[in-house]
Amino acid sequence: MSAERILVLTGGIGGAKLCLGLQRILPPAALLIAVNTGDDFEHLGLHISPDIDTTVYTLGAIANPDLGWGRRDETWSFMRALQSLGGETWFQLGDGDLAMHVERTRRLAAGEGLSAITRDLAARLGVRAQIAPMSDQPVRTIVSTPEGNIGFQDYFVRLRCAPVVTALTFRGAEAAEVSEPIAQALRGPGLRAIVIAPSNPYLSVDPILAIPPMKSLLLASSVPVVAVTPIIGAEAVKGPTAKIMRELGISPSPLAIVEHYRGLIQGFVLDSRDAHLAQRIDMPVQLCDTLMRTIEDRERVAAAVLELVAALEGRSSAPAPEVL
Amino acid sequence: MSAERILVLTGGIGGAKLCLGLQRILPPAALLIAVNTGDDFEHLGLHISPDIDTTVYTLGAIANPDLGWGRRDETWSFMRALQSLGGETWFQLGDGDLAMHVERTRRLAAGEGLSAITRDLAARLGVRAQIAPMSDQPVRTIVSTPEGNIGFQDYFVRLRCAPVVTALTFRGAEAAEVSEPIAQALRGPGLRAIVIAPSNPYLSVDPILAIPPMKSLLLASSVPVVAVTPIIGAEAVKGPTAKIMRELGISPSPLAIVEHYRGLIQGFVLDSRDAHLAQRIDMPVQLCDTLMRTIEDRERVAAAVLELVAALEGRSSAPAPEVL
Repeated sequence: MSAERILVLTGGIGGAKLCLGLQRILPPAALLIAVNTGDDFEHLGLHISPDIDTTVYTLGAIANPDLGWGRRDETWSFMRALQSLGGETWFQLGDGDLAMHVERTRRLAAGEGLSAITRDLAARLGVRAQIAPMSDQPVRTIVSTPEGNIGFQDYFVRLRCAPVVTALTFRGAEAAEVSEPIAQALRGPGLRAIVIAPSNPYLSVDPILAIPPMKSLLLASSVPVVAVTPIIGAEAVKGPTAKIMRELGISPSPLAIVEHYRGLIQGFVLDSRDAHLAQRIDMPVQLCDTLMRTIEDRERVAAAVLELVAALEGRSSAPAPEVL
Repeated sequence: MSAERILVLTGGIGGAKLCLGLQRILPPAALLIAVNTGDDFEHLGLHISPDIDTTVYTLGAIANPDLGWGRRDETWSFMRALQSLGGETWFQLGDGDLAMHVERTRRLAAGEGLSAITRDLAARLGVRAQIAPMSDQPVRTIVSTPEGNIGFQDYFVRLRCAPVVTALTFRGAEAAEVSEPIAQALRGPGLRAIVIAPSNPYLSVDPILAIPPMKSLLLASSVPVVAVTPIIGAEAVKGPTAKIMRELGISPSPLAIVEHYRGLIQGFVLDSRDAHLAQRIDMPVQLCDTLMRTIEDRERVAAAVLELVAALEGRSSAPAPEVL
């Protein structure tokens, strides 16, 4: 097998956009995606995997273009009926989206693993890339706030990221195994590069890295590892990344992202608006307009990632320089 | 408390129509409905109670007028999405209808009883009558066919009542208790009469009667018990009643229904088209056009039931005749 597969570590919509760009410019079967499941939760008796679904819907071209989650052409009869029955409605579930949760929950209860279920459901929706959870075991992101610990979706959806974050922990990560498709790719010969998507480093990527064998496999891998900045200037493109950084005492900047991934990455995709910071990053930097509004944007960022990977491959086949 | 409550034993849409008629002509709080739960089943991980839902939706005026089950103004995004995911689609679940199943399943898993859940959900949908399951314990109707035993919904929905029925059993009935609202009504002083709705005697009413303490309480009750015919001529108004009767070796006729309920009922509502059979029924008979297409039809049959009850009350306060 030639080393042609790209492994992406990703969370929600920002990462999914890059994955879609990569799916569009890479050959079939060349894209493997490890998705954060720290956001997963049990709600209304259903197993909900928000980041997996956002990735599947985005790559299956049925994502809701306005919401950043859920399906396009969605109806909402379930939520209206649930409200009339006095049920919990703070977490919105579209009617078509529900099928994913009900079917996943049913198959999990029947004993199937999350990796196998995810692969099958994604394939049925026409996704060409292979999507896998980071782990088949439950890992749950716990948000510590001055008022106490809360579950991720309580923080993210119910409380709309309002509480101050004092710490993040990933319950279950210590005991979790890397899912089989991801472990195989990291151990096998077919891998070309590892890409950390422009997802929230603290909420979306850290849960993946918190699984000890995942971290070990990533550090032991000989292929280039690159990250795409989720920060432009001092702000996140989307979501609470910058807010959380400030709350954790970190000055929001692409430099802080590089610092966060130090030891793991060998290259960084920096937004063109922050070109003046490139000289302060002590590794190969690829400049790119990283805002992804259109399909062309997604392909452009994906191409920048591959360009950086190619540059790093050139380096690694040359004698190792003293300082990168 | 004056004896003013009417207790109805009922199954699906035929019985629900009579219940709606009774709800419209009786004072508030005067109608208590014991619903068959032998049709209940677990599907896609959800606890589905088809007869309870048909009754709740009908009395809450949100029933689908065309289907005989489910909700009006329903959408079907869930089923379409489930089909695209390779899920089981033989049992149709509307998007709004799903809220009932998800919320019921969630509350059952949280430890609430089916009676309490049903009362609350019905009240939230504006139902004035009190609706209760026949039992809070699971009873499951098993259909014996030449090819083996199958669950009720497999028979009724998936196989569209095609298999020949050789026997019906009600798994769990022997160990089941009467639900608290129904047991209280049958033991207490407020009851005026008991009405067996024009539901399928074998599939919908027999599961209720198969609960030993239910049968005992009904037989011990001193109030009039009447039944409304589900058969006109030699055919059922709806559903497989006549087909099942033939398969069980019973000639379909209102007389066979009277025979089926012998020992339990003291009066019978016979369809006007079968008036010639009245003289062969050895108990008070009320003639009525029992076809219920319009709201007025439902009120007419309900009024006929109350007229028969009143006639029986007159009898019971007079010296007991030798032969009714």
